[in-house]
Amino acid sequence: MKWLSYSYKGQHNYGALVNENKIIPAQAIFQDPPATLLDVIKEKPAVQDIKMTKESIDLADVEIQIPFMPPNNIIAVGKNYYNHVLEMGSKEDVPEHILVFTKSANSLLPHHGEIELHQDITKKLDYEGELAVIIGEQIRDVSESEALSSVFGFTILNDITARDLQKKHKQFYIGKSLDASCPIGPYVLEYQPKEEMIFHIETKVNGEVRQSDSTEKFIFNLAKIISDLSKGHTLLPGDIIATGTPSGVGSGMNPPTFLQDGDTVEITIDKIGTLMNTVRKS
Amino acid sequence: MKWLSYSYKGQHNYGALVNENKIIPAQAIFQDPPATLLDVIKEKPAVQDIKMTKESIDLADVEIQIPFMPPNNIIAVGKNYYNHVLEMGSKEDVPEHILVFTKSANSLLPHHGEIELHQDITKKLDYEGELAVIIGEQIRDVSESEALSSVFGFTILNDITARDLQKKHKQFYIGKSLDASCPIGPYVLEYQPKEEMIFHIETKVNGEVRQSDSTEKFIFNLAKIISDLSKGHTLLPGDIIATGTPSGVGSGMNPPTFLQDGDTVEITIDKIGTLMNTVRKS
Repeated sequence: MKWLSYSYKGQHNYGALVNENKIIPAQAIFQDPPATLLDVIKEKPAVQDIKMTKESIDLADVEIQIPFMPPNNIIAVGKNYYNHVLEMGSKEDVPEHILVFTKSANSLLPHHGEIELHQDITKKLDYEGELAVIIGEQIRDVSESEALSSVFGFTILNDITARDLQKKHKQFYIGKSLDASCPIGPYVLEYQPKEEMIFHIETKVNGEVRQSDSTEKFIFNLAKIISDLSKGHTLLPGDIIATGTPSGVGSGMNPPTFLQDGDTVEITIDKIGTLMNTVRKS
Repeated sequence: MKWLSYSYKGQHNYGALVNENKIIPAQAIFQDPPATLLDVIKEKPAVQDIKMTKESIDLADVEIQIPFMPPNNIIAVGKNYYNHVLEMGSKEDVPEHILVFTKSANSLLPHHGEIELHQDITKKLDYEGELAVIIGEQIRDVSESEALSSVFGFTILNDITARDLQKKHKQFYIGKSLDASCPIGPYVLEYQPKEEMIFHIETKVNGEVRQSDSTEKFIFNLAKIISDLSKGHTLLPGDIIATGTPSGVGSGMNPPTFLQDGDTVEITIDKIGTLMNTVRKS
């Protein structure tokens, strides 16, 4: 099942995407629909039969919104693909333990939202296509074998980064949290516990493929990330964890090539969809 | 004016502290009281005369709560006192630009709440007494001269840190965000724009003075911190910024002395009050 939040005729709503281009609104899915997709994640209400009804609407008629506001900042794992670590530095930088920073929840941007160039404060704005995991249960101190059962689903996240600010301020928060620097969506793919958990990520800038890799290449896999993060640190339903980016970022190109006004960035993850955003001057 | 949130006879409320030991509840302060202190910060409703009424209650009869849940994680500035940088490392570590990380909003703990020792995952739990600034306006790209007019007020924050996890994971988030590792309060001192902005911070562990310094010693002062943070990064009403800790943390002692089960940590900031918490085994 794929979920999305949207605005239709000026009203916020959420629902399920079916047949690639139809939305079944929450009101046709639940007897007593929770107010937001976050409430669905928290409350896990029973789903009635999902079928086309006269209430279903065309995907083309809605404006897609961010799936929901998470309870904390976006939790992000850095340096989680070997080849990305190499393109940014050297073998010595391969982490022995998960490296975790956050992105401001206020920096979230929907599918088709405009990534802000921030040309007055950065000359090195870069993309990072990533798989994001959405936690579905309140958990703490879970083992790796238990970790995946806490997953609600998956979405796509673009961990936009001002490389110069990231370097200048040492800790990553500032370079990772500029306004409109965290595109997310368009859909949340609900996790079916028996499903294969390998995804392919492809990022294109202006149609040119820049990143293309598999989550099989994670240095720390999903179960390890969730288990390690849960040690003494409660994860809440709706917490979003970005799992790191493969090689192929602009900073790793020769010569380094950063985002410019008008660029489009598309991140496709098989089984989820494509997150598309355009860069605009501030 | 000093604000606090509390539980009285099992009900959440907030109000103003007067004469050191009496609380005037919100219902006696506002004609139409906002639901939470965060809503007061956002909506800035007109305050009626604050005077003792029959509705005022004794401070001793309430359980103090965290002042409010902020809209994002706690934003924290590291290495902002020269002597603290030296006790943790060397002159080379003095930052040229503000160093910023976050603490999970889920780690907030009220006055008298128990700091969790997390003895199974850290052997080096440490305190950091800090002044925290509460933002009162939605701001972005403000100059240093404009910055202070966006301040709603001040409170006390204990930036509890697992030093071994902070080091092991490189980025500070994990070592700074364990459950029950962010005591805050007890009061929010509302800022009067003409007031002197220098505070004295004193931290005691089991009654022994460990930290005693003035915010005059900031490497980056309040106006600079707020202005720099607001560059391309919107600050929201209720955002909490911890401003760094003076020298005297347990890690800087000879020999290093970390928190243990049963320790009490009291942080006093003149004009605000004393934040007291006890450490408990997990």
